[in-house]
Amino acid sequence: MDPVATGLSRAAVWTGTGVEMRDVQLPDGETVVRIRLATVCGSDLHTVAGRRAGPCPSVLGHEAVGEVVAIGPRTELSVGERVVWSVTSSCGACARCRSGRTAKCHAVRKVGHEPFDGDWPLSGSYAEHIVLPTGVAVQRVPCRLDDRVVVPAACATATVMATLEAAGALRGRRVLVVGAGMLGVTAAAASTEAGAEVTIVDVDEVRVRSAQRFGAAADAGGVVDVAIDFSGSSAAAAAALGRLDVGGTLVLAGAVLPGAPLPVDPESVVRNWWTITGVHNYEPHHLEQAVAFLHRTDELYPWASLVADPVGLDATGSVLAAAPVGALRASIAP
Amino acid sequence: MDPVATGLSRAAVWTGTGVEMRDVQLPDGETVVRIRLATVCGSDLHTVAGRRAGPCPSVLGHEAVGEVVAIGPRTELSVGERVVWSVTSSCGACARCRSGRTAKCHAVRKVGHEPFDGDWPLSGSYAEHIVLPTGVAVQRVPCRLDDRVVVPAACATATVMATLEAAGALRGRRVLVVGAGMLGVTAAAASTEAGAEVTIVDVDEVRVRSAQRFGAAADAGGVVDVAIDFSGSSAAAAAALGRLDVGGTLVLAGAVLPGAPLPVDPESVVRNWWTITGVHNYEPHHLEQAVAFLHRTDELYPWASLVADPVGLDATGSVLAAAPVGALRASIAP
Repeated sequence: MDPVATGLSRAAVWTGTGVEMRDVQLPDGETVVRIRLATVCGSDLHTVAGRRAGPCPSVLGHEAVGEVVAIGPRTELSVGERVVWSVTSSCGACARCRSGRTAKCHAVRKVGHEPFDGDWPLSGSYAEHIVLPTGVAVQRVPCRLDDRVVVPAACATATVMATLEAAGALRGRRVLVVGAGMLGVTAAAASTEAGAEVTIVDVDEVRVRSAQRFGAAADAGGVVDVAIDFSGSSAAAAAALGRLDVGGTLVLAGAVLPGAPLPVDPESVVRNWWTITGVHNYEPHHLEQAVAFLHRTDELYPWASLVADPVGLDATGSVLAAAPVGALRASIAP
Repeated sequence: MDPVATGLSRAAVWTGTGVEMRDVQLPDGETVVRIRLATVCGSDLHTVAGRRAGPCPSVLGHEAVGEVVAIGPRTELSVGERVVWSVTSSCGACARCRSGRTAKCHAVRKVGHEPFDGDWPLSGSYAEHIVLPTGVAVQRVPCRLDDRVVVPAACATATVMATLEAAGALRGRRVLVVGAGMLGVTAAAASTEAGAEVTIVDVDEVRVRSAQRFGAAADAGGVVDVAIDFSGSSAAAAAALGRLDVGGTLVLAGAVLPGAPLPVDPESVVRNWWTITGVHNYEPHHLEQAVAFLHRTDELYPWASLVADPVGLDATGSVLAAAPVGALRASIAP
């Protein structure tokens, strides 16, 4: 029976110690999206492993693709459209939002990070449905794109778009990507598409070889113009910083957990005109760029191979317990 | 008698232990500028104090204003023009020069830092004349500007122009200037002119009060959008970094000597979208901006008060021995 008609949905709720399936009443008058495919991002693994604090109980998951089943206040949408949506919900009115940093809105709420017992229980994608407040940016998905191609758009791909914007012009530049996970591989492909000469480094040689299908060569040392860190390792970032040419830029994107300080020699920064810049989450235009990028490159790169075959919603607990083997993202098809 | 006609000049030569006056033959067919006024930049004090290595013997000095007395190969100049000139001489042909970083030319030579017994003995401004190779950018000085107003253009003011370019748009932003020396005071005035709300901090309260005549308020703590460090102190830079708002930028410009590492927390850089960027020397367009800025603001700010009454060339040794009292720059009128 149609769950929207009955008003019932089902969610995999993270309790702090495990995942429990719960029935949930869908709210009236809200924008509701049926989850078609959700992937497990590294930050959800951090939450489940206790490395990152989050509200409990909650529905995790912020990287997904779905189909609009109720438009609620979002009259720009139509029932039946396939969409991806931002990881942040912003007020649009505060000083941060007005300055173009909606991801750092003073009243920001996070998709997949809100309490299940609060006013937005269905905030995450490990559920049959998600409710999208008007502060969440939504992007339509072109018909041609498979769910497994577009599913990372709203976390990995959009963050990479923000990262590359921070890196500046890339044509003809030597780019070192540090960390060959989902973001690193995506950054390699996007930098290659932007005309850069890309190398990639990772502690895992299998990942490095996999990244070579996405435009990156294995790193052989030497000077680079841009280094982008997705590893979150201060030692790896420090090594990358030391390899920058004059005028070079180190973009930090992986350090989202407390870690060792990055020792920076101010004289080297000054004399070499180095730039170190951080990126966290992204703006709505990056989500638009992400979908367009995947659309442009879906025949160039084997995006679908990065996502493991989906499990059902009832198996959410098992895919949250460990990183997948043989693919970069586990996935759930509720 | 006209020294150019006789072909003789006189220079204050730094020997490594002191300053000796030497007669020097002016070269034929070169661009020669008679020094009208030269100031003593902090980096020359570093050289003389042994904190910074430099070739010896040499003619120091790289912040000056002079009058063209022989045009040599520089047919764009005319005898009698008053000019300032860049601190670097660049080849214009290497990859660095072609990429727009002429100050980091692979064959760069430095005004006031070349050996007196080499092929460019008159490279510095503590002399009656300086020889300007074609690789040195030259900027004409508007008639209205006093020598004491325009004399810092080619080091302090142009470096500040590069620093502000690195800081990004300033209108409506909160700018903290760290270090109220010549560069800090100039940055305060230029940031104020650019529409920023400027505060300044220095260990010397007298300097802070002096900087208030240049648009800066005394720092009262709190969050800022941009911090610019001219102090070279890692502790001061770290404190400034910690005060940046989301999206803030720390520009490092003062750290030109080996110093303590700057401890950077990568997670804070990532989550706050912080940028740390370094600036050293500048490009020709910054020299042009520097002269234009001093021209626009010579009635707004008491620039001449920053430069002490000049001593004669024979007294160069005495003004190189210590920072001036009551002004930010000692000066020499050969």
